Amino acid sequence: MKIHILAVGSELLTPFFQDTDSLYLTRRLNDLGLEVAAKIIIGDERENLQNAVRRSFADADMIFVTGGLGPTDDDRTREAVAEVLNRPLHFHEDILRAIEKRFLRRGKVMPPSNRKQAEIIEGGEVLANSAGTAPGQWIEVEEKTIILLPGPPSELQSICEALIWPRLESRRRSFLVRKVLKTTGVTESELEGLIDGLYPRDPERRLTVLASPGQIELHISAFSTRQAAEAEFRTEALAGELRKRLGTLIISDDGADLEEIVGRYLRRRGETAAVAESCTGGLLSRRLTLVPGSSDYFLEGFITYTNKAKIDRLGVSSEIIEAHGAVSAETASAMAAGVRHKAGSDYGLAVTGIAGPTGGTAEKPVGLVFTALADGEAIRVEKNIFLGDRSRVQFQSAQKSLDMLRRRLMEKAAE
Amino acid sequence: MKIHILAVGSELLTPFFQDTDSLYLTRRLNDLGLEVAAKIIIGDERENLQNAVRRSFADADMIFVTGGLGPTDDDRTREAVAEVLNRPLHFHEDILRAIEKRFLRRGKVMPPSNRKQAEIIEGGEVLANSAGTAPGQWIEVEEKTIILLPGPPSELQSICEALIWPRLESRRRSFLVRKVLKTTGVTESELEGLIDGLYPRDPERRLTVLASPGQIELHISAFSTRQAAEAEFRTEALAGELRKRLGTLIISDDGADLEEIVGRYLRRRGETAAVAESCTGGLLSRRLTLVPGSSDYFLEGFITYTNKAKIDRLGVSSEIIEAHGAVSAETASAMAAGVRHKAGSDYGLAVTGIAGPTGGTAEKPVGLVFTALADGEAIRVEKNIFLGDRSRVQFQSAQKSLDMLRRRLMEKAAE
Repeated sequence: MKIHILAVGSELLTPFFQDTDSLYLTRRLNDLGLEVAAKIIIGDERENLQNAVRRSFADADMIFVTGGLGPTDDDRTREAVAEVLNRPLHFHEDILRAIEKRFLRRGKVMPPSNRKQAEIIEGGEVLANSAGTAPGQWIEVEEKTIILLPGPPSELQSICEALIWPRLESRRRSFLVRKVLKTTGVTESELEGLIDGLYPRDPERRLTVLASPGQIELHISAFSTRQAAEAEFRTEALAGELRKRLGTLIISDDGADLEEIVGRYLRRRGETAAVAESCTGGLLSRRLTLVPGSSDYFLEGFITYTNKAKIDRLGVSSEIIEAHGAVSAETASAMAAGVRHKAGSDYGLAVTGIAGPTGGTAEKPVGLVFTALADGEAIRVEKNIFLGDRSRVQFQSAQKSLDMLRRRLMEKAAE
Repeated sequence: MKIHILAVGSELLTPFFQDTDSLYLTRRLNDLGLEVAAKIIIGDERENLQNAVRRSFADADMIFVTGGLGPTDDDRTREAVAEVLNRPLHFHEDILRAIEKRFLRRGKVMPPSNRKQAEIIEGGEVLANSAGTAPGQWIEVEEKTIILLPGPPSELQSICEALIWPRLESRRRSFLVRKVLKTTGVTESELEGLIDGLYPRDPERRLTVLASPGQIELHISAFSTRQAAEAEFRTEALAGELRKRLGTLIISDDGADLEEIVGRYLRRRGETAAVAESCTGGLLSRRLTLVPGSSDYFLEGFITYTNKAKIDRLGVSSEIIEAHGAVSAETASAMAAGVRHKAGSDYGLAVTGIAGPTGGTAEKPVGLVFTALADGEAIRVEKNIFLGDRSRVQFQSAQKSLDMLRRRLMEKAAE
């Protein structure tokens, strides 16, 4: 079955908007073992829109048309599809009543322009919209299916969950299972070397590498025409091979990021952490506290941008800073030990470095970052040189700090 | 001139990847007064790919085909376009030499698979790729233009900047000028009310509202078939009307976010700021320090998640916390005054609230956030109830804090 997604809306052809509905549709179709053959993004202009519908109707077996069901003059999806199918639009009194009621519940009167949202293509089934005014439409023509859906994600998704996916479940031809392994501490080419030979050669499985500085994701998918368990087995077999090769480079296989993994360990052990940040400027704390419930193990954070703050807040000695500089292994270590002591936490994390774009020297270039971890037994410090702009250096610094804590927690868990 | 963008790559039809090259292409085409009529995203599968090329070749006058120029078996753009145009591919020895050299410079030998990147469609012009191996191709057929470009953004963009835009400049039919007004402190429906009647009715101008919690952007564009100055004038005329209506709700008209605007004011006045965060967990510091050079005015930050930290670090009295709770106007005020005093800064910003998803009560629900600003003259505190998930509550809290500082700095600048 060949599936097209046709996203309608002139704003989607500007540099400011991305079509995101198709990502949701693709994910849920994949869950049903169905793949998308093409995505087409088209404006509201009548001729172009009709042409695109005509093209997809000729090429695909199932077409999802998203957007263009609003009340304004620019909303022409209904008309365009009706025209291409050469079917009239029929006005449905009951849909109009439902729309009017929706306005009344908010103490408003329905503007006359909404009237056209009650028009359904002949032979089309109404897909009730519990989250908005425009209903979806399900039209079957010549063994092909055209599904019209409103563009706002909450409306589109609620219609799909209630009325589309249960129905397509019966047309399921195969089962698809996905797994994402997140890794850190390895470059893309190093990782490619490590997983050499593991790219699946069978058509039932796929492995895609999604790399960004500081984190590389391995997306595994497998399908089976027989049963979900077989697809699951195929996915897991490949995941198992990758785990053998990558070992502790893998952060998680359930979508969790470093801050969540670290949080799980800390919670399980009943331990606490505090952080002292210079060049990351709050990013490390921000990430740790993005996790719901992080107040159980995150005690506090210090953003000590100035030398004075490093001395006053963390008890770093001015001699250390004078002798080695604020960006040094010695200062990072003193910050980590200092924040642990001040906060009374089990672990102290510290970052100091040069995020750029200015502030670098020949000896201490932009991207030079020291990350340190203090616990009751030792202080560890690492020297890193990160590439990229300010934001990338900051992200990689936070990754490295969190990964040092993760590795220490893993060691302890293994003791 | 009807322009299509055809993005090639099976990964773009998964839920994990978005085509972003088209956003860049659209932006730069718009700059030349050219608009995109459709974007098509298609996989590597031969028949689908050829079909899509054929469709676009029939419908459009200019087609940008991005991706699928790599060395692997899955890279079939060259072959598909050649097939549709019914033109042979010619091997270019000089391109192969350039690719080989590129590998040698990195101390590597070119794999044989890269050989096909030296194949050019008959009649096609080579667009040299200074950032990668696959050159682009510019093919003119029957008054139509097909441009093949490599998918990696750095390669695509460097080819476009050097070889495409200068060439299209001569085909310019109109001038387009854009401006973005960023606003905060207003809901989408309030804003729609304020700008009622300002949506342009002339076809030369466009106004698009892009809303997210805590920030709404107004995208204005205008074009002129005669000269850039006319487009500029039309844009500015609408921007002027919007400024009259929206006043200080507008943060910037040059793309700057709140943290940059606040930074500019502080730098100009030679003043400094420090922050104390509870529920934002570092986001406020993170945003302030994302700005290059922020170390000139950002002194330090305290992430005081626990009551003990609020007391020990900021000097908040335990009586205040006991009497009013950690999430209260009184505690927020004490935090702002405390951080200003401790850091010795001109301004102290503080946030305390309940970001959720848990921790809310009937009296103090999730989303309740107090933001406070202390300066030498007064302490201001605001009570907010923000909607949305944890991350949205945190973002809106940071927006509100930064906006309080912006407004205070504007007042002082006006004194």
